[in-house]
Amino acid sequence: MDDADFGESLATGQRSLGDTGLDYPLWPPLTSGCPRTSTPEVAYPLEVTYAYEALDPALFTPTAVPGGTGLERWAPLLPPLRAPGLGEGGTPLIGLGDGVYVKDESRNPTWSHKDRLNRVAVSAAIGAGAPGIVVASSGNHGASAAAYAARAGLRCVVLNATAPPAVRSFLRGYGAAVLPVTPDHTWALTTQLVERLGFHPVSNRTVTHTGHPFGPEGYKTIAYEIFLDLGVPEAVYVPTGYAETLFGVWKGFAELRALGLTTVVPRLYACEPAAGGPLHAALGAGTPAASVTVGTTDAYGIACPVGGYRGVHAVTESGGGALLVTDDEMRAARAELGRAGLWTELSAAAGLAGLRQRGGPPADGPVVVVSTSGGFKDRTTGAGEQPEPMDPSWGSVAAALREAGIDV
Amino acid sequence: MDDADFGESLATGQRSLGDTGLDYPLWPPLTSGCPRTSTPEVAYPLEVTYAYEALDPALFTPTAVPGGTGLERWAPLLPPLRAPGLGEGGTPLIGLGDGVYVKDESRNPTWSHKDRLNRVAVSAAIGAGAPGIVVASSGNHGASAAAYAARAGLRCVVLNATAPPAVRSFLRGYGAAVLPVTPDHTWALTTQLVERLGFHPVSNRTVTHTGHPFGPEGYKTIAYEIFLDLGVPEAVYVPTGYAETLFGVWKGFAELRALGLTTVVPRLYACEPAAGGPLHAALGAGTPAASVTVGTTDAYGIACPVGGYRGVHAVTESGGGALLVTDDEMRAARAELGRAGLWTELSAAAGLAGLRQRGGPPADGPVVVVSTSGGFKDRTTGAGEQPEPMDPSWGSVAAALREAGIDV
Repeated sequence: MDDADFGESLATGQRSLGDTGLDYPLWPPLTSGCPRTSTPEVAYPLEVTYAYEALDPALFTPTAVPGGTGLERWAPLLPPLRAPGLGEGGTPLIGLGDGVYVKDESRNPTWSHKDRLNRVAVSAAIGAGAPGIVVASSGNHGASAAAYAARAGLRCVVLNATAPPAVRSFLRGYGAAVLPVTPDHTWALTTQLVERLGFHPVSNRTVTHTGHPFGPEGYKTIAYEIFLDLGVPEAVYVPTGYAETLFGVWKGFAELRALGLTTVVPRLYACEPAAGGPLHAALGAGTPAASVTVGTTDAYGIACPVGGYRGVHAVTESGGGALLVTDDEMRAARAELGRAGLWTELSAAAGLAGLRQRGGPPADGPVVVVSTSGGFKDRTTGAGEQPEPMDPSWGSVAAALREAGIDV
Repeated sequence: MDDADFGESLATGQRSLGDTGLDYPLWPPLTSGCPRTSTPEVAYPLEVTYAYEALDPALFTPTAVPGGTGLERWAPLLPPLRAPGLGEGGTPLIGLGDGVYVKDESRNPTWSHKDRLNRVAVSAAIGAGAPGIVVASSGNHGASAAAYAARAGLRCVVLNATAPPAVRSFLRGYGAAVLPVTPDHTWALTTQLVERLGFHPVSNRTVTHTGHPFGPEGYKTIAYEIFLDLGVPEAVYVPTGYAETLFGVWKGFAELRALGLTTVVPRLYACEPAAGGPLHAALGAGTPAASVTVGTTDAYGIACPVGGYRGVHAVTESGGGALLVTDDEMRAARAELGRAGLWTELSAAAGLAGLRQRGGPPADGPVVVVSTSGGFKDRTTGAGEQPEPMDPSWGSVAAALREAGIDV
């Protein structure tokens, strides 16, 4: 049970993405974005800088580690991991054929990619000396934050009025205080919890999305794992809400390039619901971030009205693009994943939907689609009436089997 | 993405647990128990034998393997793995303190331990040349079988009239044909699907439980992983329905002892719902298996009216015991796991409930409790009305926080 030990965090500070010449100390985490470059219209996020020159190059060689070692496997290139872990990360790549691989993030401790972010963000809360955390979330992010807070002995307040029924149980399962607050009040209440109680915020507080400055660093480990298992793919397709995952995957590969471990970075494709798509809008308008009105979509996990600069940065720097995928395209992708043995949340199928929309097998090497979460979290899961028991005679059974396409 | 390669399966045949002097060929899998020792009252299962003398001893040294390598990591000591995998196994041990570790099986491809069994059982279906599989299951087993069947390109028929709503969605997510057949008809229909359509059965067909002869071999890998991560614990506490997991974990450690890698085997504690408990009843009566009437319990995943000889064998050979745990004890254990960052199905908390019932910290080394599945699968998940949005004034919020035990 000893952790793989490649040394302590090499994090040195925070750097503004609004002006990469602007550096700040590592503590405190700047949870309201870059104070100098942000304007009333656009907030710029921060990223974490590291003393790369001090890195033990053995970090990127395959190493025998105990099952569920967790993000400590990558401690030197993460902010300090002060919150105890739950064995997050280390998720498998599942082949779909034709050089397409699914990074199955439903295999994390709370069954979504968010655990990579929250291990890091709750660690920041501990580093900041906070008695608890506050998170506004429609589901996966809140439950994941609640799990890491519980494990660390911190209280967790989730602001959420719209979670699907099963997700409400999920949030309560970790002992979080869930307050049914409508979205128009969450920012003000987050600020009150921060200022009155000293709680640490692990979700967004700014007009365009900046989120937690340390959080996306956790997502870099997706890139590190893909690199160890597969090398550098041609492209990575990422379900995209606020583009924190997209940015993290890009940054992980960019670090590998800077470290001389690869000469290329995969193209990053942001896959947003066609009902919204703030990153697609920002790229189209040439702005650092955009707001949109979100129409009807069942992909509630990535239905964001506001984007952030991280997504623009990752797509532009990698030579990728932003794709709008419809609910029907996501449903088709989810069905394809089901036939491969993977049952996903509708939002999680956006990556494969984006790949299929572009069409054709990959030309220049393998591609990876990130599947962020499992099917239990969908609004439609559990819908429909309990069927009546059927007539068990062979005639009735045979008819039901034929209807299901089984030769009888 | 190359698999760790320690060689092919060393499986040599099937051996009766009713008379361990009775050996059968490996094929076909004897899915109706031992034909010679079984009686109208008690059916005896079979286990798989191996050419242990041909084993590469490097199998039990820590080895760097790609993420999600799956059961092929252990191929020599499993029946032939002919079904493609989903990166099953490799689950983490999460420490609770005081030498207690949770083996978090919710981290498998369909979020339960059943994936270890179904990788092996669906492989048997392929080896037997079947066009599909049939499974009678209340939930996890059926969905897991459906996932592996889908991935292998086999059809899957699930016989199930009582699944919770979310589990119905789960089963359909993999394209299975779900027939709402009441339990009194499932055996007869399983036999018809076997005899008329050549489908391979991956659930039980006998008067006391024998299940699939290859299936519990998959559970041995839980013991192998614990051994690599932690060594040999003092005891392992296992949520127990038909005792296939219990037997598999015992057999894995017994193999390690036979191979000279350890001198001791952990005590195996079967943790059954107090509302039923066929293994507890069999051990009390000194019989190879027992049937009981199951009362009311929310631990539907392990509420079995009939036991099998595997459980008696594992408990007796390991010097362990059978514990009856109440729903209240399981709820308390589930809450304790939630505070540690793990949200489990009620049945999955039976192992920790059993440990806490016995009391005190472990005396002679670490103990492991197996947590079989995540909280999304419970009948009570998603119950309750959507709360009304709350008054967002600080006064109301502060009152809600105080009610949740947060200092304001």
